[in-house]
Amino acid sequence: VEVTLGSRDVARATETAARLGQAYPAARITGASNREAISSSEVVVLTVPFGYIKMVLEQQLDAFQPGALVIDVTVPVVFESGRPRFAEPAEGSAGECVRRLLPDQVAVACAFKTLPATLLRDPTASLDCDEFVCGDSKATRDRAMGVVRRIHKLRPIDVGPLDAAQIVEKMAWLAIMLNRRYKSHDARFRVVGLDV
Amino acid sequence: VEVTLGSRDVARATETAARLGQAYPAARITGASNREAISSSEVVVLTVPFGYIKMVLEQQLDAFQPGALVIDVTVPVVFESGRPRFAEPAEGSAGECVRRLLPDQVAVACAFKTLPATLLRDPTASLDCDEFVCGDSKATRDRAMGVVRRIHKLRPIDVGPLDAAQIVEKMAWLAIMLNRRYKSHDARFRVVGLDV
Repeated sequence: VEVTLGSRDVARATETAARLGQAYPAARITGASNREAISSSEVVVLTVPFGYIKMVLEQQLDAFQPGALVIDVTVPVVFESGRPRFAEPAEGSAGECVRRLLPDQVAVACAFKTLPATLLRDPTASLDCDEFVCGDSKATRDRAMGVVRRIHKLRPIDVGPLDAAQIVEKMAWLAIMLNRRYKSHDARFRVVGLDV
Repeated sequence: VEVTLGSRDVARATETAARLGQAYPAARITGASNREAISSSEVVVLTVPFGYIKMVLEQQLDAFQPGALVIDVTVPVVFESGRPRFAEPAEGSAGECVRRLLPDQVAVACAFKTLPATLLRDPTASLDCDEFVCGDSKATRDRAMGVVRRIHKLRPIDVGPLDAAQIVEKMAWLAIMLNRRYKSHDARFRVVGLDV
């Protein structure tokens, strides 16, 4: 997959892309501005913290390709005196908030919300778990599930329309709390009993 | 474990207890009124549907032993035209609602919320999953986790104070929706990456 890494700072994006390209020679990664990254991509993965989503998207609303798929990975958890708190968005979930911000011709799905960053960062790690995907429509979810399937040992599970993000984001919050309680860094979920 | 099966109708409770006793000769099960069952038990598992919890508890508030542990297993999901809807209680969760209804000298924990009834009903089935336990205090959760551990291949996970029921009950709702989507009856969860 060809990846364009967007940033407010093109130099930083280019530098990070070069570093990743050296670490993983098979990868095709280039750096760009957020605007270039968005306008050149069929699939846009929003990996900015939830608190910045609105600001970033509002500046780029006209940059999206018609028919682009946006995958929201954010979780509205904030840390207060070191403790994670779920800051429930007015829309019910971060996914629904992203949907409201974007024009109709952009499809929205949620995925990669319940995965530990430590494992996502390490391409040699085995995720060996499930990933919950919700989205606008069956077709949107199928596109997003195709992206999830490209990752080794990660099984996508279709959890239905976008409002299921209300559940999935709370599960991500639970994983954060379990990591703290059990002194782990990679709590994640598998669904038992589903013939997917 | 000695089990007293409570019902509004003692005859029905006795009949069911006798039937279960025949099916599982090692079991020690007797039938009783709800009041007798509650007043004779150190651990009371509330297995009435969420919609009846308030009515049942309000009639029995003086029946509980001081220091009794109540395990709430209910999930506030209602079916509307065949579709499951989460009917969020004013307290945030069924578990917190039960807590509010009961006197302080009764300890409250939540467990068995995310397990499929089909598997719980079948003592030969292997659950082979995790069960999320939240409750008043560490001591209360430890008592409830001890009950969970008595069940073969069921691992209790401490998810903290009672308000975590808000997450766990939504996960139970998710399992119901996954069963419908994937034509299963026994979707359930396992947490990967925890050294419990």
